[in-house]
Amino acid sequence: MFTTEIFTSFVWNLFKIKRMQNAVLITIGDEILSGNTVDTNSNFIATELKNIGIKVSQIITISDEIETIKETLKLAFETGDLVITTGGLGPTRDDKTKKALAEFFDDEIALDEATFEHLKAYMERRGRIEILERNREQAFVPTKSTVFQNHYGTAPCMMMQQNGKLSFSLPGVPYEVKPLIKDQIIPYLKEKFNLNYISTRIVSVVGIPESILADEIEEWELALPENLALSYLPVGTRVKLRLTATGPDENVLQIQLENEIQKLFPIIGKNIIATSEDKIEKILGEILSEKKLTISTAESCTGGELSLLITSNPGSSKYFIGGIVPYATQKKIDILHVSEGIIERFTVVSEEVAREMADGCQNLFKTDISLSTTGVAGPGKGEDGKEVGLVYYTIKVKNESQTFKLYMPHLDRQDFIYFVSQKIIQDLVGILINQ
Amino acid sequence: MFTTEIFTSFVWNLFKIKRMQNAVLITIGDEILSGNTVDTNSNFIATELKNIGIKVSQIITISDEIETIKETLKLAFETGDLVITTGGLGPTRDDKTKKALAEFFDDEIALDEATFEHLKAYMERRGRIEILERNREQAFVPTKSTVFQNHYGTAPCMMMQQNGKLSFSLPGVPYEVKPLIKDQIIPYLKEKFNLNYISTRIVSVVGIPESILADEIEEWELALPENLALSYLPVGTRVKLRLTATGPDENVLQIQLENEIQKLFPIIGKNIIATSEDKIEKILGEILSEKKLTISTAESCTGGELSLLITSNPGSSKYFIGGIVPYATQKKIDILHVSEGIIERFTVVSEEVAREMADGCQNLFKTDISLSTTGVAGPGKGEDGKEVGLVYYTIKVKNESQTFKLYMPHLDRQDFIYFVSQKIIQDLVGILINQ
Repeated sequence: MFTTEIFTSFVWNLFKIKRMQNAVLITIGDEILSGNTVDTNSNFIATELKNIGIKVSQIITISDEIETIKETLKLAFETGDLVITTGGLGPTRDDKTKKALAEFFDDEIALDEATFEHLKAYMERRGRIEILERNREQAFVPTKSTVFQNHYGTAPCMMMQQNGKLSFSLPGVPYEVKPLIKDQIIPYLKEKFNLNYISTRIVSVVGIPESILADEIEEWELALPENLALSYLPVGTRVKLRLTATGPDENVLQIQLENEIQKLFPIIGKNIIATSEDKIEKILGEILSEKKLTISTAESCTGGELSLLITSNPGSSKYFIGGIVPYATQKKIDILHVSEGIIERFTVVSEEVAREMADGCQNLFKTDISLSTTGVAGPGKGEDGKEVGLVYYTIKVKNESQTFKLYMPHLDRQDFIYFVSQKIIQDLVGILINQ
Repeated sequence: MFTTEIFTSFVWNLFKIKRMQNAVLITIGDEILSGNTVDTNSNFIATELKNIGIKVSQIITISDEIETIKETLKLAFETGDLVITTGGLGPTRDDKTKKALAEFFDDEIALDEATFEHLKAYMERRGRIEILERNREQAFVPTKSTVFQNHYGTAPCMMMQQNGKLSFSLPGVPYEVKPLIKDQIIPYLKEKFNLNYISTRIVSVVGIPESILADEIEEWELALPENLALSYLPVGTRVKLRLTATGPDENVLQIQLENEIQKLFPIIGKNIIATSEDKIEKILGEILSEKKLTISTAESCTGGELSLLITSNPGSSKYFIGGIVPYATQKKIDILHVSEGIIERFTVVSEEVAREMADGCQNLFKTDISLSTTGVAGPGKGEDGKEVGLVYYTIKVKNESQTFKLYMPHLDRQDFIYFVSQKIIQDLVGILINQ
């Protein structure tokens, strides 16, 4: 016989299995629509949701207007089981999300005592004794909402429910969003729902253009199991093949992915530089750690991006000894001992200077590997009249150095620096794995 | 009497005035929904459109599915006069945009000879003589489309029209998107439409929290003219006030904006660090150039972000002499002459080491100003056991150095590095403008 409790639990479990598959993210804020701010929250949230098997089907960025927010909530609930909004919860005038939430859910806004206490304690901790009326307003939430307290800001996160679907409304500041998602919302979703797992593997391929690659692996791709999907993501001159598997058993997915990746090796094995790590700086980190090699950088036109890229990998202090950005020509001479004669003869943006910079860098930091760049990131020409988009870079491994030239006049300053740095690390990885 | 021509021109002009105000951007690609890639195209396009007076009212990111693309196009045309799609035009299997476009516009796809010729020439220039079937497919476009040739990739940009509304479909690669927008689409729109101008000014405010700032300028804000809008954009500890003015005469808008900004000075003048430049590295660049000061950096936990930030401003070679990232402790000793005794006594993450790093940096690069950082970006603790999120930084201007401590354990590695670097430059700007 069924007791109510068993029955409820049975229904809840059915609900658990059926309902939490698709999410819609809503980003509220004119600063993104106007191009003032890049939306990085959606990227973070999508990744976190993917890891627990929830697929983001849409990301919609809208302006801070009550009617627009309400219409978009309606649309989002039509396609998503889960709706996450970010933005529009600050203490200032241009924030209307809370009002829209209350109207949409046919609710009212009232002071939540627990939230107000939390807010007071938060502000006291930060040395702000006086609570402004504006801050007090932040403790007003829709009465039907469940509040997830924000430990790194003044705007609370509110959960609402409708027909078994959920919405969470978060502030827009990235470092408030991250802990709310990671420490509170993800654990909550994992506890409440039986989720379908999604596993992803990325195969990094170099030395082969996307269209030729696609031809070579066409048969393999067509033979992939139903629950696996393939995407091509070009980054610089590398192509990332992303394989995504969906299913109820995480272990099965991982075995499936490994099997399919193994089948790739007979076809394009020599072009594969990694099958587990996604980011090139992580791939490099693994190789350097394994081979017990140290590295240093001497950068001119890349301005510090190379050292930032290498050190962005946690644990990089094991192999990255140091970097230098001798921006002024005199510093290339003084610190890296690039010869003045070479600069006079070939100019500072030249193969010869790149090579001497790498030599000087290796000497300065006493490393197995050194990388150097000299070029013109633009938008103005180099002081020696060299063209925008031209760069020479040297990769020196022990006693052997190779210098490369790239000319990418169509890239703007920022893209140029990014592309060149990615390419250098890709080339280095290519050199190291073929040793 | 009206000739047909005059009448057509009259109607066209009416249409010019009325129709091009709102744009909807559609980003097509599973790599963004899955969190693999951050969408930077939308940010670029939104900025460019804003500059010619077209407001982006929505940005929608969707997956590479024909039905979804068609539905979203329908939705977008309901609210936007202009629809720009990016992504889904590559040579590989996961790209379905073109098919969706043709179906949506009740059209067919056919080989476009001019596009094919352009594609062949493009590939020959890049040393690829053999044209694959996949590449030839890229020259197939909807027959009703107007093609804008892509000079930096193989996928053409297609313009379609419906009831006087326009859509442009672009590939997803940022360095292909930028020139297509800037060199072709923006000039086209400017020529075809009488656009309402949008002017923006950003006032950067430091040393005052967002909620208190809002209270102090409330009266000023309420008295703003109808066609001006205000937004608050917090960045690190700085608040950017963005004033946007819309109207037919660009000069009038600029005078309006300047007037309103002048009224802010009696209220919060001492907290305003800039009223024309938006980015802190540009603000710094202006001040350094004006005061004829040079600068250098010595970074540990920020890994090169400070030097990258400073050099990201074109023309920074006039004041940025160089930077060093002495990641290994020994290099702080060898190159910057930080004393071993100090490190032993206070550990490497300490006020004293930050100060000595700034001294050593100033000596090495012979600059007026030096900046230094030593801290623990995480996720692991520092080698001396210091907590994640702790950083000491020194700002040294001529002979005076000030050392600051920050503790931000809630930030992840990347946000920590970004926040700290922004804060240091903000602090430096604060110091320099009050001198």
